[in-house]
Amino acid sequence: MNPGILYPEGKICLRELGLRDGLQLTASWPSTEDKIEWIERECNAGIRHFEVGSFLPRDRYPQFADIRELIDAVARLPGAKSSALTMNERAVRDALATRVDEIVLVVSSTDEHSLANIRRGREASIDLVRHACSERNAANSAATVNAAISMAFGCSISGAVDPEDVIRVAVACAEAGAEVIGLADTVGFAGPRQVRQLCRMATRALPGIPLIIHLHDTRGTGIANAAAALDEGVGILDGTLGGLGGCPFAPGATGNVSIEDLVFLCERQGFDTGVDLEALIEARRILARSMPGESLHGSLARAGVPSNIPWRAAEATW
Amino acid sequence: MNPGILYPEGKICLRELGLRDGLQLTASWPSTEDKIEWIERECNAGIRHFEVGSFLPRDRYPQFADIRELIDAVARLPGAKSSALTMNERAVRDALATRVDEIVLVVSSTDEHSLANIRRGREASIDLVRHACSERNAANSAATVNAAISMAFGCSISGAVDPEDVIRVAVACAEAGAEVIGLADTVGFAGPRQVRQLCRMATRALPGIPLIIHLHDTRGTGIANAAAALDEGVGILDGTLGGLGGCPFAPGATGNVSIEDLVFLCERQGFDTGVDLEALIEARRILARSMPGESLHGSLARAGVPSNIPWRAAEATW
Repeated sequence: MNPGILYPEGKICLRELGLRDGLQLTASWPSTEDKIEWIERECNAGIRHFEVGSFLPRDRYPQFADIRELIDAVARLPGAKSSALTMNERAVRDALATRVDEIVLVVSSTDEHSLANIRRGREASIDLVRHACSERNAANSAATVNAAISMAFGCSISGAVDPEDVIRVAVACAEAGAEVIGLADTVGFAGPRQVRQLCRMATRALPGIPLIIHLHDTRGTGIANAAAALDEGVGILDGTLGGLGGCPFAPGATGNVSIEDLVFLCERQGFDTGVDLEALIEARRILARSMPGESLHGSLARAGVPSNIPWRAAEATW
Repeated sequence: MNPGILYPEGKICLRELGLRDGLQLTASWPSTEDKIEWIERECNAGIRHFEVGSFLPRDRYPQFADIRELIDAVARLPGAKSSALTMNERAVRDALATRVDEIVLVVSSTDEHSLANIRRGREASIDLVRHACSERNAANSAATVNAAISMAFGCSISGAVDPEDVIRVAVACAEAGAEVIGLADTVGFAGPRQVRQLCRMATRALPGIPLIIHLHDTRGTGIANAAAALDEGVGILDGTLGGLGGCPFAPGATGNVSIEDLVFLCERQGFDTGVDLEALIEARRILARSMPGESLHGSLARAGVPSNIPWRAAEATW
């Protein structure tokens, strides 16, 4: 319940969302064994947060059928934390019966997307956050409740989104009990100025609440947007190994920001990630092996880690 | 000779370098006819600057054999400007015998790279800038002399580069007569903070001189670095259609920043580019057709231009 355990103040935290966001649209997915190897390897490389899936009916979403085994796998790794998406009351109940460290509820910035995505309006999604918090308290669970505000930088259905509106939704989620708030550029509309503005507004409006920035590289601005968030002091960032994931509104588009490229950016900007980038790149092999049909993204893995300049924050001359 | 004709103050200028930097490492290249169609289509889309090749021996560099025809093709297009790389005295003389609008001399930040790249040291390259300016004056040519400082953010041979040193080289080039100075992240080492710092230093040290920023996306930071340059008021940016190009030190790596993604970034940041992005994306077909073996990069072309948010600077709500 204390978000500081998941997100120590002032520390950079890169969250691996590939096992959830990365597998939402893929035609295939790794076996449970491969998923666990994926988590273990990334954890060895220094990544500590894993969103391992969504509590959904296993017949319709077989890629998430092993979510409980993955939560247990994360729990066995010292220092590692797990998140799970919970889209309705049943999912919340199921998640709270596990050792998951965080449950994530999606609240759309717009009613239109909310209805299309989870068949309930924006207010009803905020009610679900409230419900999740009271269930969590009743269950005596230590799980943190995270409200992820989707379409925070523009909506694929209703277009431009007023940032004041996004902040109102975020504050309402915090008032409903969410201890962590995420701002998601679900379809990759954002530019760096927009990210700076919304991060600044959210930091002001939500004192003491850890803020997550969730970026997609749909239109090439993912890493630039991450740099903008870091500039505003937002140091909890989502990514996926190999940029796994896509965009439901743009088939074939690049998806989540590649976590390898995020590590390089953070270090180059002077923020210590604690991540062994070579080992992280090495972990991509599991994806290549277990999902051979998926194209992986991210520039760094193609070029390799620079060998002759001091690019790590700890040794930076810049 | 007046760089303001090429680079009107305060206006964003995106330069297409694909015909030169993009073709340096490729196994194949478009026919002259296709290259001209490439230039014409991009010009119709709103791009006005084209670096069309390098004056080099045609037997060893057949991809640039048609450079004179391309200079003539650009000269026929209203408002379009051509640049050409000139690596030695002979190239300068040859270039000045054409209608080229700008000749570009490469000066490495480091002696080591300079010797490896053009078999003359850093000081000797600055002498070549001086020579080019006096040749240009003697020839009564109107061509602008552009000194491109390569390895300005780190050197693939000698490692970290002191920004003070880069500025000293840039100032020496300006003193040698260069009217335009470029800062090149030749191997994609830079991060946004580094770009901001060097742009700021260069803007101070070179008052009245148009500054170009030349970025590669080798390690995923290209667009983030472009955003940093824009923040510092540097609005002349190099890119290539489809991110064509590569890195001689990292085979298989992504190359120059994609000019399509640059347009989107600039507009999203509030800078009017005057470019029709749909038409620019359409121009990639020429590359796909004439260089089918080359993989094209850039996220925007995969996702498409957003149809339901006001992303253009002129209509931005941000």
